Amino acid sequence: MSRTRFDLSESDLPRSWYNLNADLPTPAPLHPVTHQPVDLAFMSVISPRGLIAQDMAREEAIEIPEPVRELYKLWRPTPLMRAHRLEKVLGTPAHIYYKNEGVSPVGSHKANTAVAQAFYLKEEGGKAFTTETGAGQWGSALSMGCNFFGLGCEVYMVRLSYNQKPFRRFVMESYGAQVYASPSSRTAAGRQFLALDPKHPGSLGMAISEGIEAAATSSGAKKYSLGSFLPHVLLHQTVIGEESLKQMELANEYPDIVIGCAGGGSNFAGITFPFVRENLRHGQRTRIIAVEPSACPTLTRGTYTWDSADAAGIAPICKMYTLGHGFVPPGIHAGGLRYHGMAPQVSALLAGGHIEAQAFDQVDVFESGLLFGRAEGVLPAPESNHAVHAAIMEARQCTLRGERKVILFNLSGHGNFDMMSYAAFARGELQRYDHPQAAIDEALKDLPNIVQA
Amino acid sequence: MSRTRFDLSESDLPRSWYNLNADLPTPAPLHPVTHQPVDLAFMSVISPRGLIAQDMAREEAIEIPEPVRELYKLWRPTPLMRAHRLEKVLGTPAHIYYKNEGVSPVGSHKANTAVAQAFYLKEEGGKAFTTETGAGQWGSALSMGCNFFGLGCEVYMVRLSYNQKPFRRFVMESYGAQVYASPSSRTAAGRQFLALDPKHPGSLGMAISEGIEAAATSSGAKKYSLGSFLPHVLLHQTVIGEESLKQMELANEYPDIVIGCAGGGSNFAGITFPFVRENLRHGQRTRIIAVEPSACPTLTRGTYTWDSADAAGIAPICKMYTLGHGFVPPGIHAGGLRYHGMAPQVSALLAGGHIEAQAFDQVDVFESGLLFGRAEGVLPAPESNHAVHAAIMEARQCTLRGERKVILFNLSGHGNFDMMSYAAFARGELQRYDHPQAAIDEALKDLPNIVQA
Repeated sequence: MSRTRFDLSESDLPRSWYNLNADLPTPAPLHPVTHQPVDLAFMSVISPRGLIAQDMAREEAIEIPEPVRELYKLWRPTPLMRAHRLEKVLGTPAHIYYKNEGVSPVGSHKANTAVAQAFYLKEEGGKAFTTETGAGQWGSALSMGCNFFGLGCEVYMVRLSYNQKPFRRFVMESYGAQVYASPSSRTAAGRQFLALDPKHPGSLGMAISEGIEAAATSSGAKKYSLGSFLPHVLLHQTVIGEESLKQMELANEYPDIVIGCAGGGSNFAGITFPFVRENLRHGQRTRIIAVEPSACPTLTRGTYTWDSADAAGIAPICKMYTLGHGFVPPGIHAGGLRYHGMAPQVSALLAGGHIEAQAFDQVDVFESGLLFGRAEGVLPAPESNHAVHAAIMEARQCTLRGERKVILFNLSGHGNFDMMSYAAFARGELQRYDHPQAAIDEALKDLPNIVQA
Repeated sequence: MSRTRFDLSESDLPRSWYNLNADLPTPAPLHPVTHQPVDLAFMSVISPRGLIAQDMAREEAIEIPEPVRELYKLWRPTPLMRAHRLEKVLGTPAHIYYKNEGVSPVGSHKANTAVAQAFYLKEEGGKAFTTETGAGQWGSALSMGCNFFGLGCEVYMVRLSYNQKPFRRFVMESYGAQVYASPSSRTAAGRQFLALDPKHPGSLGMAISEGIEAAATSSGAKKYSLGSFLPHVLLHQTVIGEESLKQMELANEYPDIVIGCAGGGSNFAGITFPFVRENLRHGQRTRIIAVEPSACPTLTRGTYTWDSADAAGIAPICKMYTLGHGFVPPGIHAGGLRYHGMAPQVSALLAGGHIEAQAFDQVDVFESGLLFGRAEGVLPAPESNHAVHAAIMEARQCTLRGERKVILFNLSGHGNFDMMSYAAFARGELQRYDHPQAAIDEALKDLPNIVQA
C-alpha cells in the first residue's frame, strides 16, 4: 500500500502566516453608528493593537513570533493523512487526503489563533480577554491560550450549550477561565435579551455582543477576542494550509479540490487561503469549496451586502454574505456553524468567483461523518462532518466519471465532546431542516442602511 | 530553546513487538478448577489461537503483521515531547519527556492491542469479540478494532460508568458495538451478582466474568478479549516503548527514569518493557516505576501469590500481586486502575526487583494532572495523572538535589471524556482514601488453595 502519513518535523513548522490582504484587499469595516470606516482608535478600545495592525497589513507573509511557534510545537505540525480506507469503502478512484487539526490539546484548529492572540495581548501589557463561545471549541482554545500567557479569560457561552454540554465548560475552567451562560445579566446587551425571554437559549451573535460590551466597558483592562471572522484570525489559521502544501509535496500530489467547512470562516481560510494564493499567483487551478449547513446557508442563500457582525448591532458593519444579523438559525448540532454572517475575506472570494459554496443537511452530514469515522478511526466534530460529506460527494462524482482527482479536506476537530449528537443521530432523532427562506427574508429586511460603494 | 518534538515518520514504525517472555518467563496460569497449568485446548475455548501462541512464545521479537502496521499508521508513530514548559513551572533541572498516546482515535494506548487482537481473530475466521470495560477506554478501542475488521463486538460495561459516563458508550455504539450494563441479566455470573443487589454498580472483575462466560457459552461463535493483564496484550503495547527508544535517540538523551501508571499493567508494560530489555541485556540502569492509586494498591500493599484473574473465579489463576479477587476498590475517578490484580509479567518484574512501585492518592494526582495540563496543554486521563504525578515528584527530587535526571513517562490517554472528574476536583469534591488495609486483609482470606511451587 502507498504511504498513509505525511508527517513533518518541528523544523518544518511554517515561519510565517499568509496574508490574503496582499492579494485581495477587502473593504474596511464601518462604525456601527457613524457608518464611517473604523479607525485604529475605535478598534483599539476592544482589540489588541498588534491584531488590528494585522487586519490592516498588506504584506504577503507575516512572521510568526517565536513564542507562538514554540507553543505551536505542542501540537503542530499536525498530521496530513491519505484516507486509503475511506477510498476503499467508497470504491473511488479519487485520492482523498485530510489534515487532522483534532490533535491539538483542545481538539480543534481554534488553538492556532488562540495562542497567537494571547501573545499579542500579553505583549502590549493586557490583562484579560473576553470572548464568546458556542459549543465551546473556541472558548476552550482561548482559555488555554490565555493560561499559557498568564492572562485572564472571561467566556460568554451560549446558554443552550452551557446547559447541554458542560464538558467543554469544565475544560475552560480547568485552564482557569471564568465562564458565564449567555445571555447573562452581566451586560446591558445580555439583560436586554433576558428581558425578552428569561430562559433565552442564546446565540453566537448575542454572546459576541456581550463579550464586546464587557471589554468596551472595562476601561482598557480587558480586550475582546473573536475566534473567527476577522482577518487576523483567518491569518493565524493559514499555518494549516502552509503545512498542507509541504505535506502534499511529500505525497507527490497536488490537490484538485480543497474543502473546508465554514461558519465564521476561519478553519476554511486556514486550509484554503494558501491554495488560493497558488491559484492567484502561480497558475494552479484548484477548486476550493466552502461547506455550510443548509439550516444556516450564509454563502449559498445569503446576500453579499453590509451587515452588522453581531446580533445587537454594536460591532462594526462589514461587507459580507449574510442572512441578516437578526437571523437565529435552528439548533443544529454543528454549533460552530450557526452564524448569520461570513468572514469578509471569504465572502469576497466567493463574490469574486474564486471559491465555491455548498450547503448540506445535518442528517446527511452525520451519515458521512460516521462513514468516515468507521473507515479512518477518528469520529469528526459535527462541524467537520460538513467537510467530510462534501469530500465524499466529490469522491463519488469521481467514481461515476472514472476520474482520479486529488481531494484534500480539513478535519477541523474531533467529535469526542459531541458524542450526544452521534447518539441522537443513531437514534434517528437528528432533525432535517428545510431551507429557512422565510426567516432569511424577514431578517434581511433589517440591514444597516449603508449606501453601497 | 532546545527541541520540543521528536517525531518519527511512518517508515520508523516498529516492525516487531518485544516479548518479555524471552528474558523473564512467568509461571503458566492454572485452570480455575483443576489447578493444573492451562493448555491450548482450554484457552482456545475463549481466546483466538494466535493470541494464545503469543502468550506462550519465547522469541524476543514478534513481527507485527502488515495489516496491523497499516492500521497503526492511522495514529502512530505517536509524539514524544520534551515538557519544557512543565520543567520551567517546576523550576527543575530535570529533563521531562512524555509519550503522548492520547492522539489515537479513541484517545488512549488501548487502540494498540485492539487492532492486533481483532486482526488475529479475523485471521482464524472468528465472528465477534466479547469484552469488559470500565470507564470505556478499552471498550472504545476494541469496538474500533472490531469495526476495522468487520467483526462484532459485545461489551460488558461496569454499570456505574454506563450510567454516569454515557459518552464512551456512544463512541462504542458509533463503531457498531453492542454495549450492556454489567452486571447484566445476559449471563449466569451477572444474574448471580444482580441477585445480591439488583442495582449493583458493578466492577471490572465482574464484567470480566460476564465477558468470559458470554464467549465460553457461544459454541465458538464469539471469543473473549481482555484489554490488559495478559502477555499478548502487554506485548502489543511494546510498540510504545520501541518508538520511545528511537525518539530518545533523536533527543540525544537516555532516560534515567521511566514511569507508567499501572492498573492491569498494559500501558506500563508498553512504555517500560523495551527499557527493561535494555537494562537486562545491555547494561542500562534505568529506574522503572509503576504508579497506582493508593485506593487500589495492588503492587505496594498486595501479596505476590496465586489468585483468580476475575471476581467470579471462572478465569485462570495467575501468580501475581493481588489484593484478593474479592476486593472491591472504592469508586475512584481512575476507573481503569480499579483492578484487584496485576499482570503476571509486571508482578514478576517487581518481585524480582527489576522495577519499583509507588502509590498516590487521587487528590494529589489530579492536582499534578492539572499542573501538567496548564503547562503543556493536554489535560490527561485520570489514570495517566498517576504517571504525571510520579514524574513531577521525581523532578522535584531533582530540584532538591540539584540533579539533572532524564525522566520519561507515558501519557496513556487524554482526559476529554473525564471532564466531570476534573470538575469534581475543582469543586473540592474528590475524596481522599486511606489505604484500605482491612478490606485487603479480608479479601486475601479468600484465595484459591494452591500449593506454591
